[in-house]
Amino acid sequence: MRKQVFSLLVDNTSGVLSRIAGLFSRRGYNIDSITAGVTSDPRFTRMTVAVRGDKLILEQIENQLRKLQDVRHIEKLADRDSVCRELLLVKVRAKAEQRQNLISVADIFRARIVDVESDSVIIEMVGSQSKLEAFLNLLDRKDILEMARTGVTGLTRGTEDVQYMDQ
Amino acid sequence: MRKQVFSLLVDNTSGVLSRIAGLFSRRGYNIDSITAGVTSDPRFTRMTVAVRGDKLILEQIENQLRKLQDVRHIEKLADRDSVCRELLLVKVRAKAEQRQNLISVADIFRARIVDVESDSVIIEMVGSQSKLEAFLNLLDRKDILEMARTGVTGLTRGTEDVQYMDQ
Repeated sequence: MRKQVFSLLVDNTSGVLSRIAGLFSRRGYNIDSITAGVTSDPRFTRMTVAVRGDKLILEQIENQLRKLQDVRHIEKLADRDSVCRELLLVKVRAKAEQRQNLISVADIFRARIVDVESDSVIIEMVGSQSKLEAFLNLLDRKDILEMARTGVTGLTRGTEDVQYMDQ
Repeated sequence: MRKQVFSLLVDNTSGVLSRIAGLFSRRGYNIDSITAGVTSDPRFTRMTVAVRGDKLILEQIENQLRKLQDVRHIEKLADRDSVCRELLLVKVRAKAEQRQNLISVADIFRARIVDVESDSVIIEMVGSQSKLEAFLNLLDRKDILEMARTGVTGLTRGTEDVQYMDQ
């Protein structure tokens, strides 16, 4: 199983997310995450889809995506020539005496404490998926009260592949 | 038009994103973003849905969501008792001589330069949607080459509403 991140420029219509998510679920593809956000051109949405599969499956997925009318452009985000990031918010159980330890761990990962209550803190962190996992592994599982992750988003480096539709 | 962010704990099944996105598109609801991420319990996914509408529409949406079998728990994230964040990656045209100015603007917003090429940089920023907009408004529109946004995710503050299913 390999992992592939597709960056799609799609028409900003109300049904596009449902159609793309539906394509993956109907065919039983392993989807890790989908994120969608506006671009600077309100006609288009940029969607980032992370999937897993063998070479054949990944090719099938790409072909299926190309067939969708909503999809204007497809890019594969490879590790070496793209920047991929995910946002994590995690609420951790922490009384006053445990807080300093948490702050130290957060500092190492350049994570931020964004809320402190009497018995919990919320930590915000951005990184690659493996960095987020490494951070979560350092926390005590039983102290993780809630977490919210956005799924991965990304851009290619440099200007060669820029889709000027995005402007 | 008011804005409402729903935080949903849903079953981690392959069709759940498509069903929830489909519910919104079929009924023509104004959806700003959906993000979905794993929780520390692999049986559940946390989805964050940002929508706009008048009071009646927002109530309808909540009722429709409650009817879905996949949806285990619904929380409304209000500004005062929750932390909501979005991740933005933006690629900006910048030759060496413009870079310092960009770095200064990024510093003010606690954004990070995550890639530098000869004629462009990629900036990573986390914040509320209004903070991201304020940052983007400071950039010259014509210099924005590409952007990728995750949509908003969030957690309630404190431990009162914690769903221990999440563990």
